[in-house]
Amino acid sequence: MSQKSFQDCYPDSLSYCYGCGRLNEHGLHIRSFWDGEEAVCSFHPGAYHLAIPGYVYGGLIASVIDCHSTGTAAAASYRAEGRPMDSEPPFRFVTASLHVDYLRPTPIDQTLEVRAWVKELKGRKVVVMSTVTADGQICAKGEVVAVRAPEHLIKG
Amino acid sequence: MSQKSFQDCYPDSLSYCYGCGRLNEHGLHIRSFWDGEEAVCSFHPGAYHLAIPGYVYGGLIASVIDCHSTGTAAAASYRAEGRPMDSEPPFRFVTASLHVDYLRPTPIDQTLEVRAWVKELKGRKVVVMSTVTADGQICAKGEVVAVRAPEHLIKG
Repeated sequence: MSQKSFQDCYPDSLSYCYGCGRLNEHGLHIRSFWDGEEAVCSFHPGAYHLAIPGYVYGGLIASVIDCHSTGTAAAASYRAEGRPMDSEPPFRFVTASLHVDYLRPTPIDQTLEVRAWVKELKGRKVVVMSTVTADGQICAKGEVVAVRAPEHLIKG
Repeated sequence: MSQKSFQDCYPDSLSYCYGCGRLNEHGLHIRSFWDGEEAVCSFHPGAYHLAIPGYVYGGLIASVIDCHSTGTAAAASYRAEGRPMDSEPPFRFVTASLHVDYLRPTPIDQTLEVRAWVKELKGRKVVVMSTVTADGQICAKGEVVAVRAPEHLIKG
């Protein structure tokens, strides 16, 4: 996609996240976009991201849910203030808690589609729900409690 | 450590996990050992495993908790049957759910110590609790519901 992702709008100093930082050369480069009221992320696992032969590693699924959800929390917070994601001051969310239910083994050779939506946005706290779909089936469900990072943590 | 880890006892066909498989050359090589009634895992994050500058990526913490907990579930199940981990038939656990509470930012330049213990072991299901400590402080807490993988999934 040539469209700007949520993560493309993070300031450089906050773009080194292993999951979603565009400047982390070893990272997963998770990218998230609005699709109406939901945020969507497509991710194609590497062949080595496996758990048992044929299936995706659960820690990778947790990682994709994590970054996509904190990105969605940030994007939703900008939206709530009616300003673009690359405007000042920057919002950056950290994960207070992460919950993943693995419903079925996730096939390794498919592109994962993660869809997230905001369940609650209250002050500095955003609760983001998500599903991970592969080959037309929901394989995992996520719930992330994201909290706006204190300013001293996000100063580059 | 020269001692055999839980994961060293997995059969070759189940040793390609990105998190803990000794045969996955791209993986994290998480290794777990008994320490009395607890299972312990030391993990030193790579410099690129960061979230925001100075701190460990939450998805990595989730991954370490995940593999250490499913390994602990397997080890505890062998122990409950009074047989060594490399005996037949092999037990291998998959994650039904993963919950992580991130209590504070985890410094990137420290070795993480993950300690896990079994809260419940009932038939094919094991609930494993854990803490992640860095620099003497508990930075995260985990709860994993692990389920013994069906035989058709673990045949190499």
